[in-house]
Amino acid sequence: MQKIERIAQLRDFLRPHRERRLGLVPTMGYLHEGHLSLIRQAAKECEQVVVSVFVNPLQFGPGEDLDRYPRDLERDQKLAGEAGADILFTPGVGEMYPNGAKTTVRITGLTDRLCGASRPGHFDGVATVVSKLFHIVEPDRAYFGQKDAQQVAVIQQMVQDLNFPVEVVSCPTVREADGLAMSSRNVYLSPEERKQAAILYKTLREATREREAGRLCRAAEAVQFIRERLEKAEGLLIDYVEVLSYPELEPLDRLDGDRSIAAVAVRLGSTRLIDNVIWPQEEGTRCTSP
Amino acid sequence: MQKIERIAQLRDFLRPHRERRLGLVPTMGYLHEGHLSLIRQAAKECEQVVVSVFVNPLQFGPGEDLDRYPRDLERDQKLAGEAGADILFTPGVGEMYPNGAKTTVRITGLTDRLCGASRPGHFDGVATVVSKLFHIVEPDRAYFGQKDAQQVAVIQQMVQDLNFPVEVVSCPTVREADGLAMSSRNVYLSPEERKQAAILYKTLREATREREAGRLCRAAEAVQFIRERLEKAEGLLIDYVEVLSYPELEPLDRLDGDRSIAAVAVRLGSTRLIDNVIWPQEEGTRCTSP
Repeated sequence: MQKIERIAQLRDFLRPHRERRLGLVPTMGYLHEGHLSLIRQAAKECEQVVVSVFVNPLQFGPGEDLDRYPRDLERDQKLAGEAGADILFTPGVGEMYPNGAKTTVRITGLTDRLCGASRPGHFDGVATVVSKLFHIVEPDRAYFGQKDAQQVAVIQQMVQDLNFPVEVVSCPTVREADGLAMSSRNVYLSPEERKQAAILYKTLREATREREAGRLCRAAEAVQFIRERLEKAEGLLIDYVEVLSYPELEPLDRLDGDRSIAAVAVRLGSTRLIDNVIWPQEEGTRCTSP
Repeated sequence: MQKIERIAQLRDFLRPHRERRLGLVPTMGYLHEGHLSLIRQAAKECEQVVVSVFVNPLQFGPGEDLDRYPRDLERDQKLAGEAGADILFTPGVGEMYPNGAKTTVRITGLTDRLCGASRPGHFDGVATVVSKLFHIVEPDRAYFGQKDAQQVAVIQQMVQDLNFPVEVVSCPTVREADGLAMSSRNVYLSPEERKQAAILYKTLREATREREAGRLCRAAEAVQFIRERLEKAEGLLIDYVEVLSYPELEPLDRLDGDRSIAAVAVRLGSTRLIDNVIWPQEEGTRCTSP
């Protein structure tokens, strides 16, 4: 596997192989089983796989964890290679933003809610860096984890609105044995917090069962059901609990119609955790632009 | 020459020819000699040339001339074909914005000044539609007229910031015999206004001569020189007269340093006209992304 830091070098490397189906897995590194499942899926479907590792300053707000975000490029390279990646693209900030960032890609509506409300500018940063990576790598397909469900919705919207010639593939959330969604940020958790963190998915699963049994019919009831259970967990601070249409992320009354998402964000100590379930349950999606 | 209205059809048509060098000339139609010079340049440099004709609602403000913007697709098709175009791409608004426009591309700084100040949102609309056209056509080179100098600067900035794999080529302004810059909007002018309109370039040329003779050394002097002459023209309303660095469009003191632009926008009756000169004079530019 090749590790490449420079944009021009990556382009030179990829140019002779334009006829091969190319998959991109954009990451911020510190790879875990969630990322590896995306890389494996890309390797299954594509003839060449680029994994990018870039901790994108544009998507971090002031006071967030940009500086302490965990990094281990050597380990990433080994794991990505084993999972089937051909190239690890690891540009520095100066390579990605040599003259700052005068140009931003902004998606309205979708980005006002959930994490967009808690993290203003976050999704502009995501959309902008993903646009750059799409232009640098020119993949046929790009792979994202459904754990960041709002990110998937935002990227799909961007790809459709701007006619990116890229198929966006979202893959199911990968979880620890106790249900905690895999995240690079899980390393921030103390042993005590780590134990508590399982309550997020446990609660979402309970809500899913209640909905399937016909005992949760309205979005507001589902929000209340989840909120009541999370509020009982000691040391856990709720950022949001929302049940919205998916992928539109519009307010919703009844739950028996189209797809919906139950999404939560909490703080455990200094760590922010998010999780979600899609109703009815699904195994990832595919989306291309018109 | 092929006329294509649908995005999917254009993609199907271009797909087998990906190895050919592809040129794109984005226009709003009602082609004149300025557009045709771009098409001829593209045909000289590229193996295949797409000319897009799309009057983009996103780049018109309220009360602007979207509804009366001149259109004549049949004539456009004939002229573009004669100039060397292979495909005329003429999507409708429903094809380009089937679900509105939730995603916009925004360039800060550059777009606050000149036409960006007079036409808020205009350059967001331009950047967004050019992004879409770049993704739909996937050209190797795209051609723009230097008459819209700020547009060229904005597109070059966008291409660099977002790493579009497209070379932006700007070509010199094409002028009528009396110096008036070619523009689709010139048809709005009454015979009397048409005569008066020549004063724009006449004044810019006088300022250029003064500067070259060493009698205009500062930006503020050049602005005053141009403004005084335009203010004497009856029925002409100045929107702006500015002398800035180019392509950065930053305020400037002395004129003997790097490239600068003298740019004017005026109203003659109900018609808005713009023109500019670059100092020292130049014959268009080329710009690729990192």
